[in-house]
Parts: sequence; structure tokens; C-alpha cells
Amino acid sequence: MNYSDLVAVRMEHAVTRVTKTVFPGRTNHHNTLFGGEALAWMDEAAFIAATRFCRKPLVTVSSDRVDFKEAIPAGTIIELVAKIEHVGRTSIRVQVDIFVENMYNDDQHKAISGTFTFVALGPDRKPTPVLGDMTV
Amino acid sequence: MNYSDLVAVRMEHAVTRVTKTVFPGRTNHHNTLFGGEALAWMDEAAFIAATRFCRKPLVTVSSDRVDFKEAIPAGTIIELVAKIEHVGRTSIRVQVDIFVENMYNDDQHKAISGTFTFVALGPDRKPTPVLGDMTV
Amino acid sequence: MNYSDLVAVRMEHAVTRVTKTVFPGRTNHHNTLFGGEALAWMDEAAFIAATRFCRKPLVTVSSDRVDFKEAIPAGTIIELVAKIEHVGRTSIRVQVDIFVENMYNDDQHKAISGTFTFVALGPDRKPTPVLGDMTV
Amino acid sequence: MNYSDLVAVRMEHAVTRVTKTVFPGRTNHHNTLFGGEALAWMDEAAFIAATRFCRKPLVTVSSDRVDFKEAIPAGTIIELVAKIEHVGRTSIRVQVDIFVENMYNDDQHKAISGTFTFVALGPDRKPTPVLGDMTV
Amino acid sequence: MNYSDLVAVRMEHAVTRVTKTVFPGRTNHHNTLFGGEALAWMDEAAFIAATRFCRKPLVTVSSDRVDFKEAIPAGTIIELVAKIEHVGRTSIRVQVDIFVENMYNDDQHKAISGTFTFVALGPDRKPTPVLGDMTV
Amino acid sequence: MNYSDLVAVRMEHAVTRVTKTVFPGRTNHHNTLFGGEALAWMDEAAFIAATRFCRKPLVTVSSDRVDFKEAIPAGTIIELVAKIEHVGRTSIRVQVDIFVENMYNDDQHKAISGTFTFVALGPDRKPTPVLGDMTV
Repeated sequence: MNYSDLVAVRMEHAVTRVTKTVFPGRTNHHNTLFGGEALAWMDEAAFIAATRFCRKPLVTVSSDRVDFKEAIPAGTIIELVAKIEHVGRTSIRVQVDIFVENMYNDDQHKAISGTFTFVALGPDRKPTPVLGDMTV
Repeated sequence: MNYSDLVAVRMEHAVTRVTKTVFPGRTNHHNTLFGGEALAWMDEAAFIAATRFCRKPLVTVSSDRVDFKEAIPAGTIIELVAKIEHVGRTSIRVQVDIFVENMYNDDQHKAISGTFTFVALGPDRKPTPVLGDMTV
Repeated sequence: MNYSDLVAVRMEHAVTRVTKTVFPGRTNHHNTLFGGEALAWMDEAAFIAATRFCRKPLVTVSSDRVDFKEAIPAGTIIELVAKIEHVGRTSIRVQVDIFVENMYNDDQHKAISGTFTFVALGPDRKPTPVLGDMTV
Repeated sequence: MNYSDLVAVRMEHAVTRVTKTVFPGRTNHHNTLFGGEALAWMDEAAFIAATRFCRKPLVTVSSDRVDFKEAIPAGTIIELVAKIEHVGRTSIRVQVDIFVENMYNDDQHKAISGTFTFVALGPDRKPTPVLGDMTV
Repeated sequence: MNYSDLVAVRMEHAVTRVTKTVFPGRTNHHNTLFGGEALAWMDEAAFIAATRFCRKPLVTVSSDRVDFKEAIPAGTIIELVAKIEHVGRTSIRVQVDIFVENMYNDDQHKAISGTFTFVALGPDRKPTPVLGDMTV
Repeated sequence: MNYSDLVAVRMEHAVTRVTKTVFPGRTNHHNTLFGGEALAWMDEAAFIAATRFCRKPLVTVSSDRVDFKEAIPAGTIIELVAKIEHVGRTSIRVQVDIFVENMYNDDQHKAISGTFTFVALGPDRKPTPVLGDMTV
């Protein structure tokens, strides 16, 4: 399998979903999801997707711009979807979207989006090629 | 669309995935995932799947037998998958499996399984047909 | 002391009580105790009772049927009582009841009940007799 | 029933027990129970005991001296016992002791002790006699 | 007082500090501070600084690039410092730096930096001038 | 530098600030900050101030009287300020005040105050002079 096919297969494998309810213990004084809680969940989902992509130790390099398009009210369901967006030599950028759905109908729409970048580390704790020894 | 087709379509719609890392703050003194934490996550995933199935207010009636086939070590990734297992007139039973995967290879296997039962409530807070007025 | 007396003494010793208030951070969108939180507390109480009974390393084998007889509103006090229900050769089954009481009167009644099963492990991490070398 | 008998009966009724395991997520960098976590648990137990004593709305007035006689290691069981220590006209003082026990033997000894004072409030949010209209 | 003096006075007033210990319950499987936890803390500090600056209801618009220059080990102290970086007509951008210090010497250096943007809302829930009716 | 100058310099260095919002997940059934949560935050701030003062391993000896002058409503900002109050040979007493401020005006006033005492430990885990080998 050539490199770009390998990347495509690994990207498919890496997709990570996290579904949650917005309970009162997770909200701010506006009775909407506390932004910091959203960021913590996004970072965890992004980290899992990146780990699944390369199966190597990773460190977070940056959270890039995260847009809070709208406030997410208490009593809704949210679903985070994390996907690999870009693969560099030693780094991976992951896109995370948060979709919100009302409990009592099927509509779902995007409320928050952002990207997170990770670097793969070798046994010497130095950056290492993301897919160096990976085969399918 | 007839009832059994409706059920099939809703079951497909209801599948809920929750992926998490087993961090130190979520473990017991054996350095494995605390069983109570697993149960809390399973209940939340089951509740979301049941809500997505019928889009009605629900109450938990029971958690049925949950088998802890093996302990889940810290530093792994787990994925919960919640699926509708049985649809009664006013109740829904949801199966939740927890799969564990090592961070550094692709294998994933089932570690914990259980079912949870919910009842749908009407505006009068009495049990109501699960899919009474639901169409596709 | 014979075995059945030993069991009776150990059962008495094992009884475990956990009292809590149902604060907003512990509730769901119905403003009642989140079922998953209740399950996590029950598992912890059951584990302590089983450990006190045999004073050996234990692993959770299963949570058996847990009945949520009624929703527990925010602003109440709850008391969990965990008692040994059955002693097998290498396993222990613990019953946990959750009683709810209003803050402003003395009534207390049962709201949730369930059982949890544990297995005792020897130094070889294999199942070992629960009360093998236990004396009083 | 006269007042001192009433107090004695209510004191008996008020005793509150909370049993917990000291899991890694509850410890500090010395791998012992974080003192602040202990204080939070003591305050909750004291509040429940005081509420059970008088069944009136209460506010915390003060935590009095709390002695940390020894550090409580991870992997132990602790039991908090809260008892009414003194009853004033509008206030109640509660003693809370934390006993620590090793998982693998029956010994239990006191590790932390302190007292907490509460005041009862009437419908006008002013201090009100603790047992004003209480009968048995 | 003219507008730029007002901004300068409010900026001084807005500076917000949050100091924390990196306890085990706040770390990932590398035994360093979980990035998501850091982001949640930064968002809360930024929100407080922005609120102190304008004393108006605010919503988070975006977290801009956050750089994780180095991993923060368990058992250290961290201090977040949030400062107003830029004031627009209806928006405020806040810089948050996380400084890490070893418990046992005085050195402190920057480990994580990022910016967060908020918009002020008027009674009609529409964007409103940040310092519209503010005087000193 | 003589000892009292050293103490003065270290006291200045030790001052620790922690700012927080009182979100719903941190309140009790009166919709005010749960007292136990306040105590946990005070203990952490006091511990950091004492550590910064002497840069030695410390254990909590006692929380002394903590006065809850008033309840702190949800939706406010609080700022904890921890300062060294007294330096003994092997112990340090830290004063912690909690100031409350409404989100929408600049007023800030004291709501909770208390002191916490720590002892410094040498490599032999015995009490050791607080500033024994400390120079500036």
C-alpha cells in the first residue's frame, strides 16, 4: 500500500465520536455549556483521533482557532466528531466539530468547531515521523 | 412506513458512541478504571441512545446485569457503543458494550457489557407508547 | 468459631453506610439525581462492604439488576446501605439500597436497589476462597 | 417528652456516616488524601447531621479547628462519623471524625477531627430556635 | 476621563490570577497536566478578566491559537495570568499565560499561552459597545 | 539579609490569588456556593502560599476557625487571597480570605475568612526549621 492510501485508511480508522448530555453540573451562569468544558472535551476527542491515526505517543502542540458559533443550552445532547485534517511529517492536525441536538427532535447542527495539532514522539522523546513504520 | 420499518430506521438512528481515555483521575487503587465510573458512562450513553430512538422524555427503570469481563488498565482508550436491543410498548431496552483498545496498536476487544431499560413518559408523567406519534 | 458464625460476624462488620446530599451538580435535566451517579455511588459502597467482609483484593464481576423505583429530586438527602447478601466460595454478592429523605422531615423510604458481585483474588491473581484464612 | 429527652432522641437520630475509598483522583502529590477534599466531605457530613437533628433550613456559620493528625494514604478506606456536639438556642455544633482503615485488615483509627457550626433559619431568613416546634 | 485612559484603568482592574497545584486527578497518562484541563482553566480565567473589564454579559466567540510550549508535570504549581490584550467596539480579546513553578524553588517560567475573544451583549442579546456607559 | 528581612521578603513572595466563578455545579440546594467547596479551595490556596514561602515539603496540621460571614450566590466571581500570617520555627500559619464580587459592578467585599497551619518536613519526614537553609 502506498503512502497516500495508507493515510486515507488511517484517517478512516481515526474518526472519533463522543456523545454527551449537557447536564446542570456542566453549565455556566447563563445555563449554557461552559466554554472551558467544551474545550476540554474537544482536546480529549482530538487526542484520541490522533492516537488512533498513528498509534504513537503524542504531545499537544497547539489548539488552533476554536469558533463558538452559538451557546449550547442545558438539556441538549451534543456529539463531538474528531477527524484528521492534515498530516505533516511529524505532526497531525485534527478537526473537531460539536453538533448540538434537541432531545425531542432529530435535527442536529454544528455549534462549535476547532482544530488541534499534535506531534509524534519517538523513544528518545524527539519528534518522529508520524507514520514511519506503520503498515496496514 | 410500517411499524417494523420505523423501528429499524429509528434503531439505526439511535446508535450512540462515546470514546474516552482512562486517565489517572478515573481509576481505582488497582490502577484500573473504577467500575462505578464505567457504570455512570454506560447509563449516560444508554439514555442518549434511548432518547434518540423515541425523542420523548424518559426515566431509567433499571440497569440489568452488567458483566465486567476484565479490568481496564489506565492509559488505554475505551469506546462505548449503545444500541437499542428491544422495544416494548412503553419501554426501551438498550445494550451498552465497552470496548478497550491499547493506545499503541489497533486491536479492540469487548471488556464490559450490560443493558439498561427506560420508560417513555407522556405530558401527564404516565407511561406512553414509545413510538406513538413518531413517523419518518 | 465455626464457618457460619464467622460469616455472620463478618456480615455484621461489613455493613457500609454512605450519606449524601443531592446537589445541583449531581442532577440531570429533570432536576433529579442522574442515574449514572447513583450507580457509581452504589458500586463504591458495595466494593467497601465486600472488602470489609473478607479483607482481600477484589474485582467487580457484575452489577446485577438495579431497580430505579422512583426519581430522586435535587435538595434531598440520600443514604446508601450496603450489606452482604450471599457468600460463595470465591465470590461475594452485596445488596445496596438507596433511601431518600426530605431535608425537612424524618421520613425515609427506599428509592433504588441493586446487587453487585465481586470475586476475591489471591497473590497469583486467581480466584481464592473468600474467607480462607480469616479468623475472628 | 421534655426538652433534654428530645435533644437526646434527636442526637441519636442525627448520627451520619459516610464511607469512602481514597482513590488516586482524590489525592495530592504526596499520594495522600488532599486536605481540601477531606474538609469538603466533613462539611457535607456535618450539614446532613445538623439537618437531620432539626429538619430546618441551615447555614454554615463556621468550621472550627480541624486537626489533621496524620496523612491518609491512597488505597485506604475512610469513614466519616458526624455527631451533634452542642445545641444552642439557634445554633448547632457538629463533631466530625474521620477514621482510616487499611483495606486488608480490620483496624480502624481516627486520623482527622473537627467541628462545624450551623444556624437554623426561619421563613424570614432570620435565626430561629433550633428545636422550636419539634416534637417526637 | 477620556476613552483611552478609561481603557487603561479598566485593563489594570481586569488582571486575573489563578494559582493551582497539578494533582494526580488533573493529569493524563504521561503524568503531565491534561491539555483539556488547561484549556478549561484558561477559558474561565479569560472570562473573568473580560467580565471585570466591562462588567457586562459576555459570550465566548473564539479561543484563538493556544501554544503548549511544554508539558507540565504532576507535582508542580501553576499560575494563570489573564490580561486584556485588545479592545474592539463590541469585543474584547484576552491573553492568558500559564506559568509553571517547581514546588521547591522560586523559578517560574511560561509553559502555555493563548488568547480568547468575547463579545458584550446588551439587554436585547445583541452585541453592544464594550465600554458604552462605563465611567470611572 | 537578616532573618526578619528574609521573612518579610518571603511573605511578599508567597501571596497567592485564586479567582473563580460560582457556577451551578459548585452550589448547594440554596443556590449558593457549597461550604465544603469553599474549604477545599481555601486549603489549596493556603498550601500554595505556604509552599511558596519556604519551598519545602509541607503537611497540613490544622484548619483553624473559618468564618462564613455570608452565603455566596451562584453567578458571582470570587477571589481567594492567601497570605502568611505567622511563622513559627517549624510551622507556618496562612490566612485565606474569600472576596465576592458581582459580575456587573466593581464592588468586592470579604465573605469568608480562615487560617490554615502547615509544618515543614525534612528528608527524614520529621519537622524541620521552616527557613533553615533559605537565603534570598
